[in-house]
Amino acid sequence: MFKERLEANARLVEDRLQDLLNGEGEGDFAPPQRLAEAMRYGSLGGGKRLRPHLLIESAAIFGAEREAALDAAAALECVHCYSLIHDDLPAMDDDDLRRGRPTVHKAFDDATAILAGDSLLTLAFEIMARESTHSDPAARSRLTLGLAQAAGWRGMAGGQMLDLMAPGQTLDADEIALLQAMKTGALLKFACEAGGIIGGASADDMAALSRYGATIGQAFQLADDLLDAEGDAATLGKAAGKDEAAGKATLITLLGLDAAKARLRELEQKAVRALEPFGPRGEMLATTADFIIRRTH
Amino acid sequence: MFKERLEANARLVEDRLQDLLNGEGEGDFAPPQRLAEAMRYGSLGGGKRLRPHLLIESAAIFGAEREAALDAAAALECVHCYSLIHDDLPAMDDDDLRRGRPTVHKAFDDATAILAGDSLLTLAFEIMARESTHSDPAARSRLTLGLAQAAGWRGMAGGQMLDLMAPGQTLDADEIALLQAMKTGALLKFACEAGGIIGGASADDMAALSRYGATIGQAFQLADDLLDAEGDAATLGKAAGKDEAAGKATLITLLGLDAAKARLRELEQKAVRALEPFGPRGEMLATTADFIIRRTH
Repeated sequence: MFKERLEANARLVEDRLQDLLNGEGEGDFAPPQRLAEAMRYGSLGGGKRLRPHLLIESAAIFGAEREAALDAAAALECVHCYSLIHDDLPAMDDDDLRRGRPTVHKAFDDATAILAGDSLLTLAFEIMARESTHSDPAARSRLTLGLAQAAGWRGMAGGQMLDLMAPGQTLDADEIALLQAMKTGALLKFACEAGGIIGGASADDMAALSRYGATIGQAFQLADDLLDAEGDAATLGKAAGKDEAAGKATLITLLGLDAAKARLRELEQKAVRALEPFGPRGEMLATTADFIIRRTH
Repeated sequence: MFKERLEANARLVEDRLQDLLNGEGEGDFAPPQRLAEAMRYGSLGGGKRLRPHLLIESAAIFGAEREAALDAAAALECVHCYSLIHDDLPAMDDDDLRRGRPTVHKAFDDATAILAGDSLLTLAFEIMARESTHSDPAARSRLTLGLAQAAGWRGMAGGQMLDLMAPGQTLDADEIALLQAMKTGALLKFACEAGGIIGGASADDMAALSRYGATIGQAFQLADDLLDAEGDAATLGKAAGKDEAAGKATLITLLGLDAAKARLRELEQKAVRALEPFGPRGEMLATTADFIIRRTH
């Protein structure tokens, strides 16, 4: 049941992204073909679409139809995909493979990858600002503001900067937690908050969504680090043991495997507790927390 | 009088950018220092701030105070500065100097320059979405939408892609005009339209601003090409004759110097005609068109 829902949401978002990246939308000029191809290559045909899923299911708590949340979900995914394209660049993490395929700069070139990332990021804000995304301009402004805060220097981009500077330093557990909260957590948290904005959540309900989102953000990263430490390349679709080989400090290195697993269970309980105000309407998000913690790839 | 106004606007925008980049604004986390420094280095302390000037003076036609246009002007300048930082990267135009100083990737490194550009672009949308930028959320949404359309795959980023692909091709005059309209024109045009949005311009007045903005966009680029062909490095603060040395086709190569200068005068007249509906209130923009055409650096 959960897996079907996750996949159904992913299909909906994939279709919406396909429309958006096949030239739907307005502008004085047509985009250069090579740029549009690189944007499609870097964002279509893969991924669990976890962020859109969180957004759609958070909105559903307040009775919002999936259709009503779809444009915002697609915008959010554009930001996620832009970050992967730029992070993979030779000047950054220098990765050749992503989801078992050559990365954008390998399939195209560095300049095209930089511009495709820039353009996906910009497109995300274009989508958020469109009337079709939400009829209330105040909601559109809140979505724009929240997305920019989560993605920018105080969020995802800042986290990537910390990550790039990490190899020369010895980070303690708090510093690693900060890095991860910025790099991965901020956008996952915003996914939940965006659902609340679209669904018209009260301030209390928004606070509950933020708590849930921040907690699964931590769980997501810890599960990712556990997978890297324990997984193998075949199930991951990317190189395993990469963190250790790169001498990269993770919470696993600091806590040890057993303590990390215990912490993951605590985080799951915390996430589920945050959903209590929603009663049975919070069930899909609770199952999602369970999935995040138990996923094998 | 004109020069004083241009400089006064530049100072106002510089001060506003300084506040915005010295940590004003909200977020769960503090930005990494190195990232914030690179963002400041790439956006403060230089430039004519022509786009902010156009925005502020377009808004002034409708009686908007400079203060009311300042946040949007700063957001627009963030987008301009992000584009310079990314365009200068080794994978793109590979420039070591900008305004007589080392470019961001030279002063820092490639990864930091990529992230500083990403973060300035994201910050621009954060600023546009803030209540302090405009009290009406519908205006904020229009500003966000217009900025994203002007900066994205159908605008500035698309134009940079065309520019990167140009060396292997023989572009005709129309193709060069398209490239320039996307790469430089779109953001200059939006600067004028944004002033209209802030000032509450009527549909007719918005159309006049768009016409004016598109025309000075063309003039700006032609003047730039003329400067490159005729100027010297000392007045430009960057290498002159670069286009020719790079075998880059410009309208000068195709039209010849004299025809290009005649075209520039035509564009100035067209820009001034577009301002007729505004009567004497359009004078500052008319003088700005004259400045754009006659500037020596």
